[in-house]
Amino acid sequence: MAGYSNRILRVNLTNRTFAEQTLDEALIHDFAGGRGFGVKLLYDDLKPGTDPLGDEGELIFLAGPLAGTNAQSFSRTKIFFKSPLTGGYFKSAAGGHWAPELRFAGFDGVIVTGISEKPAYLWLHDGQYEIKDASYLWGLDCDDTHTLIREEMRDPNIRVACIGPAGENLVKFAGVFTDRRAAGRGGAGAVMGSKRLKAIACRGSNRTIELADRAAFAAAVKEQIKGYQTNSGFAAFSANGTQFVVPVTNLNGMYPTKNFQEGVLRNWQSLSGDEFDKIRVRKTQCSVCMIHCGNLSKINKINSGRWAGAWSEGPEYETIWSFTGPVGKADIGLTVAVDKLCDDLGLDTISAGSAIGFAYELYERGIITRKDTGGLALHFGNNEPVMELVRQIAYREGFGDVLADGSLAAGKRIGHGAEKYAIQVKGLELPAYDPRGAKAHGLNFLTSPIGADHNTGYAPQEVFGSPFPFQVDRFAVERKGELAKWNQDLTALFEVGILCSFIPSQGMLSEETFGKLMSAATGVKDFADPAYLWKLGERIFNLERMFNVREGFGRKDDAFPERLTSEPMPAGASKGQVVEQEALLDDYYKVRGWDVKTGVPMAAKLRELGLGFAVKR
Amino acid sequence: MAGYSNRILRVNLTNRTFAEQTLDEALIHDFAGGRGFGVKLLYDDLKPGTDPLGDEGELIFLAGPLAGTNAQSFSRTKIFFKSPLTGGYFKSAAGGHWAPELRFAGFDGVIVTGISEKPAYLWLHDGQYEIKDASYLWGLDCDDTHTLIREEMRDPNIRVACIGPAGENLVKFAGVFTDRRAAGRGGAGAVMGSKRLKAIACRGSNRTIELADRAAFAAAVKEQIKGYQTNSGFAAFSANGTQFVVPVTNLNGMYPTKNFQEGVLRNWQSLSGDEFDKIRVRKTQCSVCMIHCGNLSKINKINSGRWAGAWSEGPEYETIWSFTGPVGKADIGLTVAVDKLCDDLGLDTISAGSAIGFAYELYERGIITRKDTGGLALHFGNNEPVMELVRQIAYREGFGDVLADGSLAAGKRIGHGAEKYAIQVKGLELPAYDPRGAKAHGLNFLTSPIGADHNTGYAPQEVFGSPFPFQVDRFAVERKGELAKWNQDLTALFEVGILCSFIPSQGMLSEETFGKLMSAATGVKDFADPAYLWKLGERIFNLERMFNVREGFGRKDDAFPERLTSEPMPAGASKGQVVEQEALLDDYYKVRGWDVKTGVPMAAKLRELGLGFAVKR
Repeated sequence: MAGYSNRILRVNLTNRTFAEQTLDEALIHDFAGGRGFGVKLLYDDLKPGTDPLGDEGELIFLAGPLAGTNAQSFSRTKIFFKSPLTGGYFKSAAGGHWAPELRFAGFDGVIVTGISEKPAYLWLHDGQYEIKDASYLWGLDCDDTHTLIREEMRDPNIRVACIGPAGENLVKFAGVFTDRRAAGRGGAGAVMGSKRLKAIACRGSNRTIELADRAAFAAAVKEQIKGYQTNSGFAAFSANGTQFVVPVTNLNGMYPTKNFQEGVLRNWQSLSGDEFDKIRVRKTQCSVCMIHCGNLSKINKINSGRWAGAWSEGPEYETIWSFTGPVGKADIGLTVAVDKLCDDLGLDTISAGSAIGFAYELYERGIITRKDTGGLALHFGNNEPVMELVRQIAYREGFGDVLADGSLAAGKRIGHGAEKYAIQVKGLELPAYDPRGAKAHGLNFLTSPIGADHNTGYAPQEVFGSPFPFQVDRFAVERKGELAKWNQDLTALFEVGILCSFIPSQGMLSEETFGKLMSAATGVKDFADPAYLWKLGERIFNLERMFNVREGFGRKDDAFPERLTSEPMPAGASKGQVVEQEALLDDYYKVRGWDVKTGVPMAAKLRELGLGFAVKR
Repeated sequence: MAGYSNRILRVNLTNRTFAEQTLDEALIHDFAGGRGFGVKLLYDDLKPGTDPLGDEGELIFLAGPLAGTNAQSFSRTKIFFKSPLTGGYFKSAAGGHWAPELRFAGFDGVIVTGISEKPAYLWLHDGQYEIKDASYLWGLDCDDTHTLIREEMRDPNIRVACIGPAGENLVKFAGVFTDRRAAGRGGAGAVMGSKRLKAIACRGSNRTIELADRAAFAAAVKEQIKGYQTNSGFAAFSANGTQFVVPVTNLNGMYPTKNFQEGVLRNWQSLSGDEFDKIRVRKTQCSVCMIHCGNLSKINKINSGRWAGAWSEGPEYETIWSFTGPVGKADIGLTVAVDKLCDDLGLDTISAGSAIGFAYELYERGIITRKDTGGLALHFGNNEPVMELVRQIAYREGFGDVLADGSLAAGKRIGHGAEKYAIQVKGLELPAYDPRGAKAHGLNFLTSPIGADHNTGYAPQEVFGSPFPFQVDRFAVERKGELAKWNQDLTALFEVGILCSFIPSQGMLSEETFGKLMSAATGVKDFADPAYLWKLGERIFNLERMFNVREGFGRKDDAFPERLTSEPMPAGASKGQVVEQEALLDDYYKVRGWDVKTGVPMAAKLRELGLGFAVKR
């Protein structure tokens, strides 16, 4: 079938065996690709209770059906796995250039199980595959790993997805990195590390993807580009990338500060787009994306002593926040330096920064002391220890070893009530939006299958005042179930193409145009029908839920720590707000067709979505 | 004329102007290329007394006339300049892939003068040239500079020669680095830094070098390859690169130890080829060289705690020595870690290690104390401070700022007799051969135009027992003048092609075969005549001497510190030896046709060599 190479490579690192799986028509029709394939394959493959870091732990790397074509913003790589951080279903995505190269190399995806005896990497090229020795790469940072694989294979055009020391050391929020883009969240890097798989490198010489209807596809791409050019979000992302969000969330009083004790960071203006403009070297981009939302940043000597010479590809909004909000200090230089450090060591910046902010609060409250931190003084406003803590997390040294299992596990280990200061859902640390100032955002954090993730159902209605599908009061509870579902299903439907999540958050691409791209690429007529796509999004989201239900998750796990539900925001534009968790969930479950008591999808809903196989017997 | 593009690019960074210089036939005939062009151009361009770090300071980057062809081992880049470390003529060379790429980009060389207002880099491609902004690269290490230039130009095949922080900070032994190969010695990096020139990047799409006689050239290359295959040095270099020298010099009692106080390092066996075999990842190579003498080394966790994960491309023999002999401790892990650190920061390993050993001796003698070193305890046998000292040198912090001007200048600044412990000639720190155990080696250190350099007239007769041109007793004074001249002129003649210096040191290429390559490439018949080539070598060496004479150098500057001439080697296979400096020089000057009193070439000798223009009037 066009649009797919119809080859998913299965690798068992324990036995060093390979198998090729072809995609059958029913799978393609019902799950379309990307996140659809990801959840279905993971659901089918993993027995409940599987240890994500054990022999049967599985990593599914997928390119979408539009990767490698000239459709815009579909170059992301998506990784599906059971998370060692949450114990549930997980998906994590990285931009860059890896996914198209995987397809040029002849594959739509790679599924890895087993544990290699020695460090290994996979080398995929022109339909061939090979397990190669990575002993020499073990311990290396991500940039060096890219360089040395390219040198070993004498081809500087090879694309690499790899882990850094954090993944090797099974840090539960270690990511997978490709050309300094991160599939950061949820610990895909730890799963890879547990398999002693340092990298997957790919390269292909056939650089054309077969399309079912080339003319229709070209027309749809034209339509997509026109849509971008007339969208205000396109202009904002092109200018500053996600950095433009800093003022928005601070002015809305939802920039989580001092471990979510406050909602506005003192001196946030020093992190505004204008300030990042001054340190921007140039815009960077993923393959076939005209937005160029990336930023190469560099602190020059003129600007700063301590951070002179620091550079990174980024930092993104989330990373800017992760190392300023949690520790309560705005320091643009640190955001650049620590962004690069996390890219080198292979760490998720959100969980790393958030775990550090959690440690700061414990320190301020006397739950931990200098003795625990090895002498580091974790006072809010003092960001001096941040770089060292990040390093300790990646190498599991000192107090870093405690934080390396994530805030929730660290809180349990520390005891003395520490756990309640871990700001997370299902073990995944919250990103840079205080849900007390954005209730549909909060509802998404609560119900996203991967835990508190902003990209599973971003609510631009609350952050940017987007009027689609309807205008909302960000503090209100009313209709937030409906809105959260809308955002979540929309995200899921676009992610069958592994579209960049910035695109739906800004309404840059319509379901109609996306449907044209999908059907012209694959020849599957139903994909052209927006109603079908919406049903597909819902199907995916419900199957993800059922993966978690099978693992024992339910309404009890759709829960914030009490700070967010009982401590009113003390100041700023969200002053006085809490998350009305139970009311929001009641409404949401009803809208979803899920059992309000248990949070489990009803059998009728599952059958309606063609998920009868997932109904509990 | 074939074999040359006949284009040398002149760039003035002050005025941002370019000029193209064509090579005239007389220059080609009399100086042939490479080191011949280098000394002639530098001699003509630089007024005596020029400040090497000033506006008129000049850097000449040359590719040889055989670079980019399929002749073996001619891919080296040679840089000519007045050294800020010695105040005299200097040449420094790096392997890798830059020189061929420069020729493919359409140029035989680049001459840079002036000082850019802002950090800049040069971009040469397909006959075009451009000065580009390098503000964003300033402060970056050498590897990152390579990566980001390739990313900026969206071409991973670009070749880069650049400086690191050491060059930017005008460290007088900062080098120029290309793909982790160093033109390390003499401070080319400082000159580049003074010009605010971060890098020269090149790329060409025409990858064929025009040859005068393609058939004759192919036959000569065949002859060259046959010569390699039947040479024992080829086998040794292929297996271990220069690492095989460690046992040789220790067993000969000439491995300089504890700042040249001893000649054998305790536990040197832990630095033997067998030990490096264990940490070798793979062999690496320069363009078009079948030797693959390079080593990618990596310390695995299994082997070592402190240095776990350290890796480098190398270390070479000289680097192994630089951070073991001077500080008196054999530690294979440190050699790897510090090799990479020097490659990153852009430092010459020989001068850096040697300067550190010098500081150790001052510390042990109480001439400097913990107060001077900022708390570092520089006891022989304690290599703990080495990495930090290297970093301080590159950034000119703390005591590193004192050492950053070289041992001799540091000794003068420190006072209290420190200067006499600076083991150098003309300010250039000695490499890893104690001349008390190898007198022709010593004579070469004394008289090499660049100071104590091993590659200007390496004496394999003394180190490996090579029988050419005659067998010698390494301790004897007799015939060492003749031998030093032979080695020096031979090296100079091969360096018109910028042949790798390992080749003549092992007798891997005859003058006859080299002559065939040179004449077939260029069409200049005289190049095929070994007698002409020998004369050419002598011509070059004498003009280099005259460059220095014009700067005020003479016999007084051909001098070792008194340790080497008056302190007999205390133990080992060179026990009891000193360098008989004056007797050796008397003999050498006579053989050279130089005035024995002043060390200046006689007018008759200069005229005989076609250097009448250099005779003092």
